[in-house]
Amino acid sequence: MAKQPFPLSDVYGLLEPGPVVLLTTGSGGRTNIMTLSWHTMIEFEPPLVGCVLSNRDYSFDILRESGECVINIPTVELAEKVVACGNTSGREVDKFTTFGLTPVDAELVSAPLIDECHANLECKVVDDRMVNQYGFFILQVLKAWIDPLRAHPRTIHHLGKGAFMVAGETIRLPSKMK
Amino acid sequence: MAKQPFPLSDVYGLLEPGPVVLLTTGSGGRTNIMTLSWHTMIEFEPPLVGCVLSNRDYSFDILRESGECVINIPTVELAEKVVACGNTSGREVDKFTTFGLTPVDAELVSAPLIDECHANLECKVVDDRMVNQYGFFILQVLKAWIDPLRAHPRTIHHLGKGAFMVAGETIRLPSKMK
Repeated sequence: MAKQPFPLSDVYGLLEPGPVVLLTTGSGGRTNIMTLSWHTMIEFEPPLVGCVLSNRDYSFDILRESGECVINIPTVELAEKVVACGNTSGREVDKFTTFGLTPVDAELVSAPLIDECHANLECKVVDDRMVNQYGFFILQVLKAWIDPLRAHPRTIHHLGKGAFMVAGETIRLPSKMK
Repeated sequence: MAKQPFPLSDVYGLLEPGPVVLLTTGSGGRTNIMTLSWHTMIEFEPPLVGCVLSNRDYSFDILRESGECVINIPTVELAEKVVACGNTSGREVDKFTTFGLTPVDAELVSAPLIDECHANLECKVVDDRMVNQYGFFILQVLKAWIDPLRAHPRTIHHLGKGAFMVAGETIRLPSKMK
């Protein structure tokens, strides 16, 4: 998939609607993919993103040690693989090979991009003060990539217990909001 | 609208998909409504929610002073009012009367519920350590209400600059995820 750089100032529009994301980490030969829905924008520019990982997640220690990750945004075509990533641990399986996802080298971080996702955000940890208590990492997006051919990506949004809302129609209203 | 109490253990399913919410505050006779998309679940139970307010928002000081708010979840029928709330300041208008929204007394907090919203979460601030730097408040949901007649609420999800994705179909996949 031929991706293009995406303006950092527009990253909020990818994450504000609350899609399920696949977070990739990589450190010292270990890479992993985890499924994650607990994230929020924190600042527009430079874009800061907060996300919650459990200290039981295999990715938790890799993220702490490496200080880097990629937020990959999948669409409904990948829904079964997204759930499979959420139902397994990187301690037991290599999720890239097991689920047929393609790692691609990032430009600025050691964690890989997932080629099949329509957007990828290369991130570094900039604040870990809330990690011990809440598992809450604050990330800065350093570089963003998007597939320019997907004008209306049908992202998926977790409703709990394996139910997902699929992105529907887009409406536009006169707004002064960014 | 006849609302019923909703289990606190299921609150995550309302917020994980990333809907635009209307945050209400009330303190000393001042009430306000603000439109907000920057929120995330932090913990399942008791449910903790993180959300970002700007210190330029009229609601910011009210939330700091009162330590209480309600997260109200609107559906697409309210989209124009949601945008109107986002485009105005409570310093200048009473948004309840101006936009025809109905305040209802909450059970446990001083901020009002918005009757027209399909779900309402009464919250108190439990951690404000990240407020000065990021405007990030951590809230505990004390009581949740839902309209039992709306099985498939068509929530709206901000894509930026007045564009909103409307919740589409729901798919179900076998999952061990909560």
